[in-house]
Amino acid sequence: MTTLTLLTDFGTDDYYVAAVKGVLLRLAPGTVVVDVAHRLPAGDVEKAAWMLAATARWYAAGTVHLAVVDPGVGSARRILAARAGGSYFVAPDNGLLTPILDGAAASAPAAEERGVADAADADAQPVAVRTVTRDDLYLPGPGTTFHGRDRFAPVAAWLARGGDFDALGPACDDPVRLDREPPRAEGEPPRPDTAGAVLRGQVVHVDHFGNLVTDLPSAWLGTAPCIVEVEGHRAVDRADHYQQIPRGHAAVLPGSLGTLELSMDGDDLARRWGVERGARVTVRVAPHSPG
Amino acid sequence: MTTLTLLTDFGTDDYYVAAVKGVLLRLAPGTVVVDVAHRLPAGDVEKAAWMLAATARWYAAGTVHLAVVDPGVGSARRILAARAGGSYFVAPDNGLLTPILDGAAASAPAAEERGVADAADADAQPVAVRTVTRDDLYLPGPGTTFHGRDRFAPVAAWLARGGDFDALGPACDDPVRLDREPPRAEGEPPRPDTAGAVLRGQVVHVDHFGNLVTDLPSAWLGTAPCIVEVEGHRAVDRADHYQQIPRGHAAVLPGSLGTLELSMDGDDLARRWGVERGARVTVRVAPHSPG
Amino acid sequence: MTTLTLLTDFGTDDYYVAAVKGVLLRLAPGTVVVDVAHRLPAGDVEKAAWMLAATARWYAAGTVHLAVVDPGVGSARRILAARAGGSYFVAPDNGLLTPILDGAAASAPAAEERGVADAADADAQPVAVRTVTRDDLYLPGPGTTFHGRDRFAPVAAWLARGGDFDALGPACDDPVRLDREPPRAEGEPPRPDTAGAVLRGQVVHVDHFGNLVTDLPSAWLGTAPCIVEVEGHRAVDRADHYQQIPRGHAAVLPGSLGTLELSMDGDDLARRWGVERGARVTVRVAPHSPG
Repeated sequence: MTTLTLLTDFGTDDYYVAAVKGVLLRLAPGTVVVDVAHRLPAGDVEKAAWMLAATARWYAAGTVHLAVVDPGVGSARRILAARAGGSYFVAPDNGLLTPILDGAAASAPAAEERGVADAADADAQPVAVRTVTRDDLYLPGPGTTFHGRDRFAPVAAWLARGGDFDALGPACDDPVRLDREPPRAEGEPPRPDTAGAVLRGQVVHVDHFGNLVTDLPSAWLGTAPCIVEVEGHRAVDRADHYQQIPRGHAAVLPGSLGTLELSMDGDDLARRWGVERGARVTVRVAPHSPG
Repeated sequence: MTTLTLLTDFGTDDYYVAAVKGVLLRLAPGTVVVDVAHRLPAGDVEKAAWMLAATARWYAAGTVHLAVVDPGVGSARRILAARAGGSYFVAPDNGLLTPILDGAAASAPAAEERGVADAADADAQPVAVRTVTRDDLYLPGPGTTFHGRDRFAPVAAWLARGGDFDALGPACDDPVRLDREPPRAEGEPPRPDTAGAVLRGQVVHVDHFGNLVTDLPSAWLGTAPCIVEVEGHRAVDRADHYQQIPRGHAAVLPGSLGTLELSMDGDDLARRWGVERGARVTVRVAPHSPG
Repeated sequence: MTTLTLLTDFGTDDYYVAAVKGVLLRLAPGTVVVDVAHRLPAGDVEKAAWMLAATARWYAAGTVHLAVVDPGVGSARRILAARAGGSYFVAPDNGLLTPILDGAAASAPAAEERGVADAADADAQPVAVRTVTRDDLYLPGPGTTFHGRDRFAPVAAWLARGGDFDALGPACDDPVRLDREPPRAEGEPPRPDTAGAVLRGQVVHVDHFGNLVTDLPSAWLGTAPCIVEVEGHRAVDRADHYQQIPRGHAAVLPGSLGTLELSMDGDDLARRWGVERGARVTVRVAPHSPG
């Protein structure tokens, strides 16, 4: 049985998600459909891209990931299918697949370390992208406003029942990509985790608990004291988990996706600080003390 | 494996939905349970009826659709089972099944066009309705306030595991029906899509994005210019998909269920106009121009 | 196929739930994962305990119930596995399992009465608790803030694929327990349901519809008239189901978990009265009338 994850901005109070699942189960009976999330802000492609990348690596090779956040539905925008990390991705060509094309689908380290050989093999494959041109797979409507149901679902079902990826259409070498400024380390240190470094990144996700997830790799921050600044707010405490954070303090800690997080134990830091996705994050690592 | 869809007003923050699923999976192991929606306004039978009809036609023949929006739980109201379009429906006798009894369960056109023969055959069957009288199937409580768990789930599980539909109880020829004023075309045109026609319908659903879904068949509107009026608001633009709508304008377009929709690209039209379900919709098709 | 229920405070708008399911399905393919709820107030262990107990008894023996409301994630708090009522439970050692350890997992009466022999057998087993010490099962991170994904999911998957419960770790004889004051009957009656009794309990759950679920067994209240008091509000009406409640009145009725509920037909009583979980409930049963 193939697992298929579903990520949309269709909401959970409408018939849209259920219609997509109806088509999926009708065309690929036995598929195990897992919801990622459906209440993304309408048309928020950037958030969808982050969510898909955060989710996909925890799934077994062979999983089909269907993501439909598609403000251009019905227009000439293309439908893409990708194979990455041994799994499959179907999404509109609007940048949603950017992190996947950049390698985010590689199986979580966990897989390799636990000896899941196929995952490691799959990770070695290059990422492949196809422009879907299989009109014969599509359902004929009605209307052109619900491609999630009429086009994306049949394409995903094709992959879920073992259809040939390469037969979906010609190779695509110019997928739309989101612009993303990568995190960087300034100063003169030989490595980012050296005393005196200044790390510059951004908040890439505000989670359900109000934690601020950044794009700064946790490994960049050694054990030296540091000051983290986000829009005029500061955190100097460090922690490994939430209960280590002194009450009422914000702290920086290594998050569950391998990047630094800012958190406040028992409170919603994002709301407390008024910080949203996209906020700049600066980490100043203390210089070597003279002593 | 039978697919079973579940539509309730139980919310997603309580134990109610999980209890229903526990009973379903215990009595019909292997059933694939799909959520339609659970956060309908409490007791909103009319919305449930619309949602069920919008959803069901996308599912394969043989699916069991369980819908429990049941303000009369525990009273003498009957429990109905219906067979329509080759699929099964279980719901309280409060009008929730009205569109299904009127033929809405017929498989989506898509099915026939893609050669799904059983769907076409199933659609040819007349709709059958039974009053469920199988007390032997019911769980004995506690209480009489949770028939979703104690009565509806066991009846749906009976059908999911292949139980005989006709054995559920006697035929029912007087199911409760919702009153619905059908859409109509006024004027003297030979067909509704003719110049000069006036189409009168209503908003039957406000979707997650704020689109206004009407009951006016898209086919009624030809290519002639038209003016759409909803509670003092007007739309004159027409589109096939959302990105064709000029920024800040409302437009009418053929929706994903075969009826006309009103939409505003990138904004929530229902909130912008302050329009709710039930609002009257008038479409005035331009007369033949003298030229 | 094993059924596994999932109860968390991770929300439904983040990637957390999907990551947990990815790990579960990767390690225990074929498991049927059912959501209980994910939008519990962050860290609300007491509510999680109630929800888990309310849900579990409706599932077949052999089900794995995974509950992760875990403000102490990453700290030295233990992970527990329990076997109760023939099913399995995995949760942090913070009191979440209290009702299960006290017998709440016993199969619903329904099961026995319908001749499900294994359920009755399972109920006869004593509750067993293990402290999970299987570091070899855990995923190695990254970070220590997401044990739901890295530790709880692999342990639950172990049980779902038939792993040996006793091999998870040593027996635990001191699990953390929530303090709960049990309901009681005052006065001199031989039984609680006798005229003149005073029943004292509390609101243990406010449901989706605003009904106040108490911990007072429905069987304690006979047929005599009574006055129910909650924080200065009074109900004197009694009902078996919601439609029997006079419009605008509050009434007491036997709820769907075997305890008394307070309800207002067609309205949200909790909001109307401003009552929350934990409110004291007093039921004064009328004394024998002199006539």
